[in-house]
Amino acid sequence: MTARRRTWVENGWRTIVATAFLALALPAQAGEFLASWTDGPHKARIVEFVQQVTDPTSRSYVPPAARIAVFDNDGTLWSEQPMYVQLAFVVDRVKALAPQHPEWRTTEPFKSVLADDLAGVAASGGRGLLELVAATHAGMTTEEFRRIVSEWLATARHPRFDRPYTELVYAPMLELLTYLRANGFKTFIVSGGEVEFMRAFAERVYGVPPEQVVGSNLATQYEVRDGAPAILRLPKVDFLDDKAGKPVGIDRDIGRRPILAFGNSDGDLQMLEYTTGSSGPRLGLIVHHDDAAREYAYDRKSPMGTLDQALDLAAQRGWVVVSMKTDWRTIHADR
Amino acid sequence: MTARRRTWVENGWRTIVATAFLALALPAQAGEFLASWTDGPHKARIVEFVQQVTDPTSRSYVPPAARIAVFDNDGTLWSEQPMYVQLAFVVDRVKALAPQHPEWRTTEPFKSVLADDLAGVAASGGRGLLELVAATHAGMTTEEFRRIVSEWLATARHPRFDRPYTELVYAPMLELLTYLRANGFKTFIVSGGEVEFMRAFAERVYGVPPEQVVGSNLATQYEVRDGAPAILRLPKVDFLDDKAGKPVGIDRDIGRRPILAFGNSDGDLQMLEYTTGSSGPRLGLIVHHDDAAREYAYDRKSPMGTLDQALDLAAQRGWVVVSMKTDWRTIHADR
Repeated sequence: MTARRRTWVENGWRTIVATAFLALALPAQAGEFLASWTDGPHKARIVEFVQQVTDPTSRSYVPPAARIAVFDNDGTLWSEQPMYVQLAFVVDRVKALAPQHPEWRTTEPFKSVLADDLAGVAASGGRGLLELVAATHAGMTTEEFRRIVSEWLATARHPRFDRPYTELVYAPMLELLTYLRANGFKTFIVSGGEVEFMRAFAERVYGVPPEQVVGSNLATQYEVRDGAPAILRLPKVDFLDDKAGKPVGIDRDIGRRPILAFGNSDGDLQMLEYTTGSSGPRLGLIVHHDDAAREYAYDRKSPMGTLDQALDLAAQRGWVVVSMKTDWRTIHADR
Repeated sequence: MTARRRTWVENGWRTIVATAFLALALPAQAGEFLASWTDGPHKARIVEFVQQVTDPTSRSYVPPAARIAVFDNDGTLWSEQPMYVQLAFVVDRVKALAPQHPEWRTTEPFKSVLADDLAGVAASGGRGLLELVAATHAGMTTEEFRRIVSEWLATARHPRFDRPYTELVYAPMLELLTYLRANGFKTFIVSGGEVEFMRAFAERVYGVPPEQVVGSNLATQYEVRDGAPAILRLPKVDFLDDKAGKPVGIDRDIGRRPILAFGNSDGDLQMLEYTTGSSGPRLGLIVHHDDAAREYAYDRKSPMGTLDQALDLAAQRGWVVVSMKTDWRTIHADR
């Protein structure tokens, strides 16, 4: 037996042992996959859908390759209040860089950011936001930017919960991601957030690898710096993955219509519509933030994560509106 | 035991049985994975690389999630002579649509296409090519376009080999894709070809799912037609995935630097450079078309798949130049 063949035998047996271990462990875990969900019609609907599409004898069976599930990020997988986490990053980053930019003390939108005046930032409009993106998200390589985001996430804390943002992901959603993957689904994030910002933590926190993160993206440029090839981030938004941009991003990066979509705002309306508006088994879900005690309560009037039209359409389209208050036993995982 | 748990047990055992079957079959197949490759230094180099990155005791070990391999398509996975397959599609499509467009008989670049005058098409330049793309690739939904391409592929035949193009993929490359995937690699196509054109056959022919195909893409638009949500293809090239665009496409869609890249032309130079120009184990490979008898012989002077600069750089960068003539026992799989 050659060395190569021996490696194959070893790998083969390793795979068998690992798979057997996992498979034997599954029946015991199955009932517990969605432990943070209360036993009600919404959890039952999810489980029923998964059983149908995975049962080869079902008329609704979907082969594993087509089991594509897409999740919005802000407000669906983690909190978007009191402001988007990415916006908190922008604010902190502007403050960190301010000593090198004395001119920011007198120039909008930086002046408002430094004064914690979010209304002032908003007043600078789209152009102001683009300037903030340029100052904080561009001018470095992809690898450098991810390091900056990782370092920030390691120290930044949510103003209300006083915990790192990555600890404030929703436990029921992490369970759902795991449950779907255990059932052969490929889970994608499809978010208005900037793609590299999310890739800095998506694999570690959500188990979603970089190639399964779809987001807004900046224009970039390939260049060889001091003999080292890298991707340079340019101060120009190339694609906005929000509202009607979400189906476009899905089509471009995934190339297959999902069978399950989960969002929480009107920014997810078209993604839900695109996912569920075709033949075959389809499931659309919306997280409704109705739990001011444990998280936040907001919908139609909120500037972040407005949920208005999609809430009205939900009943008509058969989208499941998940109540944070009654459907989720736990919001955030314990430490 | 509940119905849900029973399903899990069944799925668990199915997985064990299937995996055990595959794993037991592996040792016998291992030596045969690259059966169409001759036993020489190039095959040995590939096998050695794969063994190093998959051996947990090796200093070059790479965890499965980071085993990203990227492949050019035209000239690397299938033939690009006497013209790109996608161009053959354009020519046939213009002819098929010509009866509905009498004006094409007197308008360039259509007139030249209808006269099989490729020099005339080339003379119409970039603008002419964009008009051809608009006329043949845009104005329908993604799903409609894939159906058009699939139907064309089912009947079109290569002018020299008189076989469907999808039968003319390179057998040694199909084996390599399978070998890499069996070793935990995720295989991607990164090609200048239009992404939906490739997705129409990549999964069936290469085993590469739509979400692992990176290519040039048109601008698209989300719309609801007669109540059915769909993605409409617009007559505008949004992204050109060639040369310095390839690392940009890799960064955007994969979000991780590959550890293995395989190309065949100067269009792949930057992808090879980006892949191999970083620390850790890296492998760059180039197919050299030097086999006029069994396929084609071309490099520096060919208008399609020019291989000039990358060929000069190969020795310096340690890229393996695979000779079609001496490294490949078989070019195309037998029927």
